[in-house]
Amino acid sequence: MDTPDRDTADTPLSYRQSGVNYELIDPLKVAAQRAAAATAGHLQAHGFSEVADSRGESAYVVDVGPFYLASIVECLGSKALVADEMSRLTGRSHYDAIAQDTIAMAINDLITVGATPLVVQAYWAAGGSDWFADAARAEALVAGWKRACDVCGVAWGGGETPALAGIVEAGRIDLAASCTGLVNPKERLSLGERLGPGDAIVLLASSGIHANGLSLARKLVERLPEGYLTPMADGTAYGEALLAPTLLYSPVTEALYRAGIRPHYASNITGHGWRKLLRHPKALRYRVHSLPEVPTVLRFIQTQARQNDYEAYGTLNMGAGFALFVHADDAQRTVEVARAQGVEAILAGVVEAGTKELLIEPLGLRFAADALQLR
Amino acid sequence: MDTPDRDTADTPLSYRQSGVNYELIDPLKVAAQRAAAATAGHLQAHGFSEVADSRGESAYVVDVGPFYLASIVECLGSKALVADEMSRLTGRSHYDAIAQDTIAMAINDLITVGATPLVVQAYWAAGGSDWFADAARAEALVAGWKRACDVCGVAWGGGETPALAGIVEAGRIDLAASCTGLVNPKERLSLGERLGPGDAIVLLASSGIHANGLSLARKLVERLPEGYLTPMADGTAYGEALLAPTLLYSPVTEALYRAGIRPHYASNITGHGWRKLLRHPKALRYRVHSLPEVPTVLRFIQTQARQNDYEAYGTLNMGAGFALFVHADDAQRTVEVARAQGVEAILAGVVEAGTKELLIEPLGLRFAADALQLR
Repeated sequence: MDTPDRDTADTPLSYRQSGVNYELIDPLKVAAQRAAAATAGHLQAHGFSEVADSRGESAYVVDVGPFYLASIVECLGSKALVADEMSRLTGRSHYDAIAQDTIAMAINDLITVGATPLVVQAYWAAGGSDWFADAARAEALVAGWKRACDVCGVAWGGGETPALAGIVEAGRIDLAASCTGLVNPKERLSLGERLGPGDAIVLLASSGIHANGLSLARKLVERLPEGYLTPMADGTAYGEALLAPTLLYSPVTEALYRAGIRPHYASNITGHGWRKLLRHPKALRYRVHSLPEVPTVLRFIQTQARQNDYEAYGTLNMGAGFALFVHADDAQRTVEVARAQGVEAILAGVVEAGTKELLIEPLGLRFAADALQLR
Repeated sequence: MDTPDRDTADTPLSYRQSGVNYELIDPLKVAAQRAAAATAGHLQAHGFSEVADSRGESAYVVDVGPFYLASIVECLGSKALVADEMSRLTGRSHYDAIAQDTIAMAINDLITVGATPLVVQAYWAAGGSDWFADAARAEALVAGWKRACDVCGVAWGGGETPALAGIVEAGRIDLAASCTGLVNPKERLSLGERLGPGDAIVLLASSGIHANGLSLARKLVERLPEGYLTPMADGTAYGEALLAPTLLYSPVTEALYRAGIRPHYASNITGHGWRKLLRHPKALRYRVHSLPEVPTVLRFIQTQARQNDYEAYGTLNMGAGFALFVHADDAQRTVEVARAQGVEAILAGVVEAGTKELLIEPLGLRFAADALQLR
């Protein structure tokens, strides 16, 4: 395991300290990406071809003729540990919310390429058969999963519920979701070919921390006087606020299609926070002039973790869960369509020609092109 | 956790004793299946519909117009624990084989519905970043995954490599694969509508235990004088033999299509062993007159675990990794097509009208309809 750096309440809490060491994972990721790319040619034998620009994007896209096929598998991460601890402290299961988080991780990534999510598969790997003996928790997981499928209009195809004693820790569950969808009609593909200077940046609100940054959020608990039960400025317990479920954005992207708006590009703001605005490889400047409201729990984390704005916006979503890059003429209507779906949105900035960078003007922040290394 | 029953070398070793208690998991499964079935209607809003008969089958199928879309997520299970232990004992990483096992779990299920697998996504959830620091093991995992994709002619789309300390045990990895494919042309759909009396049962050989029955196989080690290094009749160490990778059967099903043979039904023989021959809900008798050779490792497990034939064939694949139900006229050619792909096959039996049951005549065994409860 990583050796944690010195950690006192006076020093900033970094992601490295929270136990995730990307330097160890990245060589494998690079090797896997290269090997994966080398398999693309297999599709030709079936009469199909990959959409090469989708490599490095949030979902993999294959041209199957009448439409594009998009697929993905996504992991919840460590948020279930917060639910487990809050359940111990308060007796209330939050697995309905956790289920929504898991589906959101897959759906919100899949829609970035312009796909309509069609089928979700559940991957629920428990540390032992006894995980499922807590009927209230199991029912909450099923109910939350079902409801998220209903919200997104996807069919729940099935899944796996293995008991993996010796691999998954006793009493824990490893949650993931796979999602398959279609880009239909093919003109909906939004891999960024049309992304360019003059485009507007519309940010969809987040509900809180969503399911990224949880390692940091959990590490922070050690510094809090009452741990997860520590009240924040609005009186809500920190742990409760962390468990607000991730918003599902596919109702917005589907409504945009019905409204005749085709985003030029989209980015799901997950790990790396606002640096995800730099996701597309094009050399473009992203100038943000307006900021969304910061959820109480994220401001609380920033303050307690002694993060400056550069660290906070470079790690957490800070109120922006999803970014849409649209033609300037569509910007205001994009905001309205999102709001009509119950998702708060703001016209936050503009795309410009120039050096690849992200400028968050109200905070005087600049993220250079190399702040995000995903490919 | 389950309380293990009394276990001595003189008593038979049951699956229950090996730590998996389906009684605890099944209520959740039923609730999840019901909730999942209730989401089918969502597809209509997109102009599509589910193929209802695929519920309860090995992959979920959606009618998207020009073809059917099939998808699945599958877990490796506990086989990685054997690889970890053998690595500790011999210094050799078997993660190339483990990668193939994981892909086989998804591919071999997906093809049962008549689908051509197109895209595989990797789900590799490690107990911590340090799992990836063992470069040889990580490279074996990547290489084996790539090779299995090459064998099956699928594109490796991408995946997730989370570090899940606190959820996945330190030093362990939870491996799963999702797979998306197309039934194309739609006439390839093989959900059993055409399954009927007179059909032949062709069994494709297994390479050993594959990736089911590993809890039992691991429990058995406690009884062996030299554990995983115990030599079997052929001199191979038990642990080495367990790690023979699962055979990939999609080259056979694709070759059958090219040869003009459309299986009426197919069953991937995984958990529940030969009881999987009873998978289809139709009231049919499956009469087996010829048996495949039993891999040394499976005979060894049967003997050491003191299992009678009913227990062994009802739990393990006993040499049959995949069952194809074909028109009698296609039976011999099906065997030949499989062999041409390097997969041994035998014409093993016949489907008859009558009470739903499986008769394994050479062993005098009968499995009644209620021996398999999957739906």
